[in-house]
Amino acid sequence: MQTRTVRLHAERILKIEMAPVPEPGAGEVLLKMAAGGICGSDLHYYQHGGFGPVRVREPIILGHEAAGYVEALGSGVSGLTIGQLVAVNPSQPCGRCRFCLQGMAIHCLDMQFMGSAMRLPHAQGMFRDHLVVPAQQCFWVGGDVSAGEVACSEPLAVCLHAVSRAGNLVGKRVLVTGAGPIGTLVVAAARHAGADEIVVTDLTDAALQRAQAMGASRTINVAKQAEALAEFEADKGWFDVVFECSAASPAIRNAIAAVKPRGTIVQVGVGGDTAVPLNMIVGKEILWIGSQRFDNEFAVAVNLISSRSIDVRPIISHSFPINEAAAAFEVAGDRSTACKVQLTFLP
Amino acid sequence: MQTRTVRLHAERILKIEMAPVPEPGAGEVLLKMAAGGICGSDLHYYQHGGFGPVRVREPIILGHEAAGYVEALGSGVSGLTIGQLVAVNPSQPCGRCRFCLQGMAIHCLDMQFMGSAMRLPHAQGMFRDHLVVPAQQCFWVGGDVSAGEVACSEPLAVCLHAVSRAGNLVGKRVLVTGAGPIGTLVVAAARHAGADEIVVTDLTDAALQRAQAMGASRTINVAKQAEALAEFEADKGWFDVVFECSAASPAIRNAIAAVKPRGTIVQVGVGGDTAVPLNMIVGKEILWIGSQRFDNEFAVAVNLISSRSIDVRPIISHSFPINEAAAAFEVAGDRSTACKVQLTFLP
Amino acid sequence: MQTRTVRLHAERILKIEMAPVPEPGAGEVLLKMAAGGICGSDLHYYQHGGFGPVRVREPIILGHEAAGYVEALGSGVSGLTIGQLVAVNPSQPCGRCRFCLQGMAIHCLDMQFMGSAMRLPHAQGMFRDHLVVPAQQCFWVGGDVSAGEVACSEPLAVCLHAVSRAGNLVGKRVLVTGAGPIGTLVVAAARHAGADEIVVTDLTDAALQRAQAMGASRTINVAKQAEALAEFEADKGWFDVVFECSAASPAIRNAIAAVKPRGTIVQVGVGGDTAVPLNMIVGKEILWIGSQRFDNEFAVAVNLISSRSIDVRPIISHSFPINEAAAAFEVAGDRSTACKVQLTFLP
Amino acid sequence: MQTRTVRLHAERILKIEMAPVPEPGAGEVLLKMAAGGICGSDLHYYQHGGFGPVRVREPIILGHEAAGYVEALGSGVSGLTIGQLVAVNPSQPCGRCRFCLQGMAIHCLDMQFMGSAMRLPHAQGMFRDHLVVPAQQCFWVGGDVSAGEVACSEPLAVCLHAVSRAGNLVGKRVLVTGAGPIGTLVVAAARHAGADEIVVTDLTDAALQRAQAMGASRTINVAKQAEALAEFEADKGWFDVVFECSAASPAIRNAIAAVKPRGTIVQVGVGGDTAVPLNMIVGKEILWIGSQRFDNEFAVAVNLISSRSIDVRPIISHSFPINEAAAAFEVAGDRSTACKVQLTFLP
Repeated sequence: MQTRTVRLHAERILKIEMAPVPEPGAGEVLLKMAAGGICGSDLHYYQHGGFGPVRVREPIILGHEAAGYVEALGSGVSGLTIGQLVAVNPSQPCGRCRFCLQGMAIHCLDMQFMGSAMRLPHAQGMFRDHLVVPAQQCFWVGGDVSAGEVACSEPLAVCLHAVSRAGNLVGKRVLVTGAGPIGTLVVAAARHAGADEIVVTDLTDAALQRAQAMGASRTINVAKQAEALAEFEADKGWFDVVFECSAASPAIRNAIAAVKPRGTIVQVGVGGDTAVPLNMIVGKEILWIGSQRFDNEFAVAVNLISSRSIDVRPIISHSFPINEAAAAFEVAGDRSTACKVQLTFLP
Repeated sequence: MQTRTVRLHAERILKIEMAPVPEPGAGEVLLKMAAGGICGSDLHYYQHGGFGPVRVREPIILGHEAAGYVEALGSGVSGLTIGQLVAVNPSQPCGRCRFCLQGMAIHCLDMQFMGSAMRLPHAQGMFRDHLVVPAQQCFWVGGDVSAGEVACSEPLAVCLHAVSRAGNLVGKRVLVTGAGPIGTLVVAAARHAGADEIVVTDLTDAALQRAQAMGASRTINVAKQAEALAEFEADKGWFDVVFECSAASPAIRNAIAAVKPRGTIVQVGVGGDTAVPLNMIVGKEILWIGSQRFDNEFAVAVNLISSRSIDVRPIISHSFPINEAAAAFEVAGDRSTACKVQLTFLP
Repeated sequence: MQTRTVRLHAERILKIEMAPVPEPGAGEVLLKMAAGGICGSDLHYYQHGGFGPVRVREPIILGHEAAGYVEALGSGVSGLTIGQLVAVNPSQPCGRCRFCLQGMAIHCLDMQFMGSAMRLPHAQGMFRDHLVVPAQQCFWVGGDVSAGEVACSEPLAVCLHAVSRAGNLVGKRVLVTGAGPIGTLVVAAARHAGADEIVVTDLTDAALQRAQAMGASRTINVAKQAEALAEFEADKGWFDVVFECSAASPAIRNAIAAVKPRGTIVQVGVGGDTAVPLNMIVGKEILWIGSQRFDNEFAVAVNLISSRSIDVRPIISHSFPINEAAAAFEVAGDRSTACKVQLTFLP
Repeated sequence: MQTRTVRLHAERILKIEMAPVPEPGAGEVLLKMAAGGICGSDLHYYQHGGFGPVRVREPIILGHEAAGYVEALGSGVSGLTIGQLVAVNPSQPCGRCRFCLQGMAIHCLDMQFMGSAMRLPHAQGMFRDHLVVPAQQCFWVGGDVSAGEVACSEPLAVCLHAVSRAGNLVGKRVLVTGAGPIGTLVVAAARHAGADEIVVTDLTDAALQRAQAMGASRTINVAKQAEALAEFEADKGWFDVVFECSAASPAIRNAIAAVKPRGTIVQVGVGGDTAVPLNMIVGKEILWIGSQRFDNEFAVAVNLISSRSIDVRPIISHSFPINEAAAAFEVAGDRSTACKVQLTFLP
């Protein structure tokens, strides 16, 4: 059996290529893939051949946000049935290293994260018609939701993890800087966690409208109203928590100025070397916390999406069939119109 | 009654000038000052007329690390007796603003921190022969220690506060970057808190020798052995906690590389805009925590010094009489020989 | 001016008596009261003359959960207008003691909590037609909700505080033991905080139906299905967090057996000496955390009720005019039918 | 090869019996045991045939606090050499269950804790002349300390873990209730963690003298001075942290009365059902935290003992050769004279 795949060979060289599909072994399932979302890292691979020290060094099948239907079960698999829609968790920690044994599988020393070029050989991804994976990576979806929504489980899990890094948000004032797919899902996750006021900043109105749809109390286009954040800087700062989703230096500066003394900034956006005002981090005793990927939040995300406790439909801006993958990547790169761009696979 | 004072008029313009001394009012005490330490901020005022946005805008009596003898008591003062050696807490929060009422007096909206040019009019400091202060700022010293040691209570309080920001240190591996007065006292404070291994980096051997005397397990001169930190970067990092006391960009980079995933970096050193690798803060989910000044740690510092549970003598490198204040500031600026430089007042 | 009041003289001796109403002074407002809820402590005062060491030692006007309309403003009051519906915060900490200055006003050494017999003279309460209070205790209500709902702000604040003691609840499994007014509002507060599964236990079906209406995933009548909790005890326990709202020894035992190792039990229900299995607290390393009253959660509660983000109507079971206060207290004591019983005042 | 063992058959039926010693397999070492301490649980097994639900149901070799010399190495063992003195960690978690993978190996669902009757078949213990164990359970001891001291690593690890449950202790006021082997080692561990004031209570003067030797600031014999704790109850309480090591109901009551609002009580002592005043746990919002066994603290304990950073000699009250094991257990049961009673093995 063969499957179509979306394979990146180098910067902007994306090919639809066939690859063999093995029989599902013990504990594995064969999935017919239905939808897969393009993530910021996929885009970086496509546009720049990598980000920071992570480079595409051999052909890699992209995709780590995907959903599919169970088509066949390997031996010993229970709890899944043929035809079921499942979300696929791309995270494959070793379960034996010291970080895994300290409850920090995110930092596994031998992580195989599907669709990531961090290691060599690269861990192959999920933009493909058929996929065989361990059953334990498949999370069952009970509700009446689309495969596209379910494929948002992974980025929502990222955002739930970011929210968990901030502690209890009930009644808190929250700033979200950057309203791309992650920023807008952080809005939904913060709303779900009981945040009171959620202010969102971005440079484009279309992005901010989506943030509004996902639960923002107020949005500010900082390209047009650069001064609008000044009110939040009075008396040493207004926000209890900032989720920094832009990795832009001016946004980080705004975050530091607008957060309260001893407030928390969760750094979600990834960038390279960035200038930060050390004196304000010290003077306001800021907690600046990095947040990467997710752990048990994947299962929570699947539940929230399948019950539409969090409705992710406003952020899915485009959908393309697999054979138009290159066009999809081009659209995904245009922040003025695109938010989450997805691929669809076999009908 | 008149007193000599050390007053800074502008960059490098330091004068010994007379000022009137009032009678101690209700709840106040008159102190005959004995010793006062030159802090990094005093030095910045002297060398550069300020640091970051904080500028000397009018003549200011410097000094916020000092000890003196009780000479007279105002009405209603109990618990202090004439002749007693006390440490003076320079922190004067308002006790009424919302931060004071949230247990964050450090961030008081109306803070009067003695010897600080942050506000206008500046809060006058303690480099003077006689001083009248509220009795509640005077902390009694029971042991047989020198006034110079007692004057180290303030910087030790800063370091105890930094340690408290890091949580429990028992059995932890600690890196201290920068072995000036604060870095070396952080070593002592971390040792007192039960840290296991304490590695210290600096660019000068003299500083590192003092760190050793204060309890470092190992010291590394990064000017000579730049590669020595590489061993700590294996398997995603070695240290549980870093106290960053240098505010130097390369040291921050080293700290981020050498700290474990989800490790803590306490930022103690103050600097301006500094480039930091965002991708590593995110990828390792680092907690970067600012630490400023101190709160109840002042009383703890006085106790530790007066019982010599922490012996601060190795860090006091020089002592000058008040009339040689300018020379003292010049020496304090030479990191190759000086650590804590102190002034002495009336015999 | 005179007002009717509901004054308790001793166990079950409740009188409607007149009392003078002063003019509102500087910073005060005159309220025409609209609705007031009977709390468990009010009921204890009425049924038993107190609880534990707290005894009614002089006549006391009961009531600390109330809402009213602004009728007149004292000098210097801004931000309130005549006719506005407000919730009244009964908490009056001193703002000067060491607990107030540590952000723990709940533990104020000089607390005046309205309607409480804890201190002598007792702090008089809010079951009365007219009331003069400091404007800062009045929280404005924007939405289109009833006075009865607004009067639930105080018990909801208690529950939001309990939830804040448990840390982040997103995606967590929660058990609530006891489905009286507090238990049911804890369900709503936990749901608002993003809890995943919320199981509620009680001895009466009526109470459990209200818990369902407030957001419970599942309810268990432990009088009928004592064994139903056994499934949660497998593999050392199921729940991340328990809110113990019954103060009943068997419920505490169930809580300890059903919570995970290192899980959290927030003790909300108040009782006297109660037997607990020490060996399980140790063996499972349980965190057992007391929760009393509230702090900034009052303002959050008012917002959530006025926007109906939390709809409290299902828990308001009865409403009586002030002159039928005794009947109201009798009904409030019958858990088989009553949940939150309220008084209404002037039309 | 045969070895002598100390095997308990039932309440007070302790026999010295021979057992075979296997060859050390891959990754294992053969130890010649040198010293082993009698723990409270060993004593419960001996005196009562168990404690709580844990019962001796088959013959069990007791002992989980022991040190020995490396006599032979199995294949593949590195880092240990013949003749070395090592402490043996009795904890053998599975490394695969969900608790192990969450960094909570203490709560392993398949724990084999040496010398424990918790599971059937019982996990056999270390009171024996020769023992074969996995090398990873052997912790090397560098300093010039006795085997008896090294055998205290396990109880010290228990106490370090209890201290870690309390968070940062620097400058804190600590109460320790109960001055048996655990209470006295908690004193040392709290002192090592930077606690300021450490008050210890017990019913016997001999125990309190040992607490003094281990670092207590003050000791109170509550059998003689029951009223001495009253001063700590003023203004809602004095202590930041209590380590409850007695499991005695009056001591728990004292702890609750003497701890500050929002203070922490770490429950270390194990007992059955015990009455506690719920109203005070709620009213003071106490954190009551269970602490069981240890995790990485074992390695820390070995380091602290081998460097004598913590000198455990004052608590070792008696030492008996293996063939006098029954006498040793009788002495260990007499709290008026005994603290830590140890067995010695082959000369």
